[in-house]
Amino acid sequence: MLPEQLARIIDHSLLKPQLTNRDVEAGCAVAARFHVWSVTVKPCHLALARQCLQGTDIQVGTVVGFPHGSHTSATKAFETRDALERGAVEIDMVIDIGALRGGDDGRVRDDIAAVVQAARGHVVKVILENYCLTDEEKVRGCRLAEAAGAAFVKTSTGFAAGGATLADVRLMRASVGPRVQVKAAGGIQTWQAALDFVDAGATRLAASQTEQILMGAPHE
Amino acid sequence: MLPEQLARIIDHSLLKPQLTNRDVEAGCAVAARFHVWSVTVKPCHLALARQCLQGTDIQVGTVVGFPHGSHTSATKAFETRDALERGAVEIDMVIDIGALRGGDDGRVRDDIAAVVQAARGHVVKVILENYCLTDEEKVRGCRLAEAAGAAFVKTSTGFAAGGATLADVRLMRASVGPRVQVKAAGGIQTWQAALDFVDAGATRLAASQTEQILMGAPHE
Repeated sequence: MLPEQLARIIDHSLLKPQLTNRDVEAGCAVAARFHVWSVTVKPCHLALARQCLQGTDIQVGTVVGFPHGSHTSATKAFETRDALERGAVEIDMVIDIGALRGGDDGRVRDDIAAVVQAARGHVVKVILENYCLTDEEKVRGCRLAEAAGAAFVKTSTGFAAGGATLADVRLMRASVGPRVQVKAAGGIQTWQAALDFVDAGATRLAASQTEQILMGAPHE
Repeated sequence: MLPEQLARIIDHSLLKPQLTNRDVEAGCAVAARFHVWSVTVKPCHLALARQCLQGTDIQVGTVVGFPHGSHTSATKAFETRDALERGAVEIDMVIDIGALRGGDDGRVRDDIAAVVQAARGHVVKVILENYCLTDEEKVRGCRLAEAAGAAFVKTSTGFAAGGATLADVRLMRASVGPRVQVKAAGGIQTWQAALDFVDAGATRLAASQTEQILMGAPHE
């Protein structure tokens, strides 16, 4: 895989709560320079990111119910519609982690479905936050996400005490059908790690260290 | 100060993303047993908490734009209205941390004002997340919160790498007028620490270790 190929499956992540407008401008410049697939920005930065990336084919995505997933479905749906109006093309939402752990599968599925419906055909990625979950919960979460119409299941927010693992990506890949993709997120920092996640079944990667990852590719 | 007096300024915090319904039921039982002022629950648990605390005078509060503060003002206002409809009496919102750091004071103030307006007279506490801020930013955030009509300024979400400090509580107390109160949150775990925060000027404390704090009072 070439760096320019890997770049096209990277969502360049600009989600730290303390990021300023200037940080987002710098991050969008990195995204454009390396021609990644998309930037993922905080909802409050959607308009700015759209403006920074005007004239490029780089997508702008955002997060919903982030990072705790504890908002009501009504708020998550509102936030999704609001994001689309501000130009978001992809939506990364956080699952109701407590409901998943508590076995309230109906609540988990309906919560995801509310966002999928509000997204009106746009890609919805469902973040499980694996760090908080048992393997059984991860598998169940994946299946509920698929049942609710998600395009992707995603390992982590990047803000818990643990991020993506290869074992989790393999488990998630095995838990959903071929129409659902797997996004690895949280702690991917090197070229080799990125390739390993792709080998494990990830077809999208979140990265904040995009430059470091892509510059780390071995020279031909 | 007696334990039963301190209890009446505690917001018993039930905000960890992984909490299940059963955890919230247990937390509400602790809140009732110690007769705290309120529980602060995740928006998705408001109805459950109201039910658990029926017949008591313990208030139910929730969080808005939590914990990153990066949602749009439209979403924060929606979430506030949604929370009031579900029975929340107090609202703890997170400031737009990036806008504060970037010097966009108008955005910070308008964002808070949108929540205050949506809260229709209910108490709004404005979380600065001091861990991310310089002292100058903390002072400016306090003044913007006061200008926007907040009832409280609050030190922390409890989910950043640092929580309340006595120095911050003193600084915040000195930065707002007498109508605005200070809530200390994040890492308060002992009776003595709680008293120290009160001495520093806090008139409300967030605690998840409520039992440990109140059982730690010296016996007469």
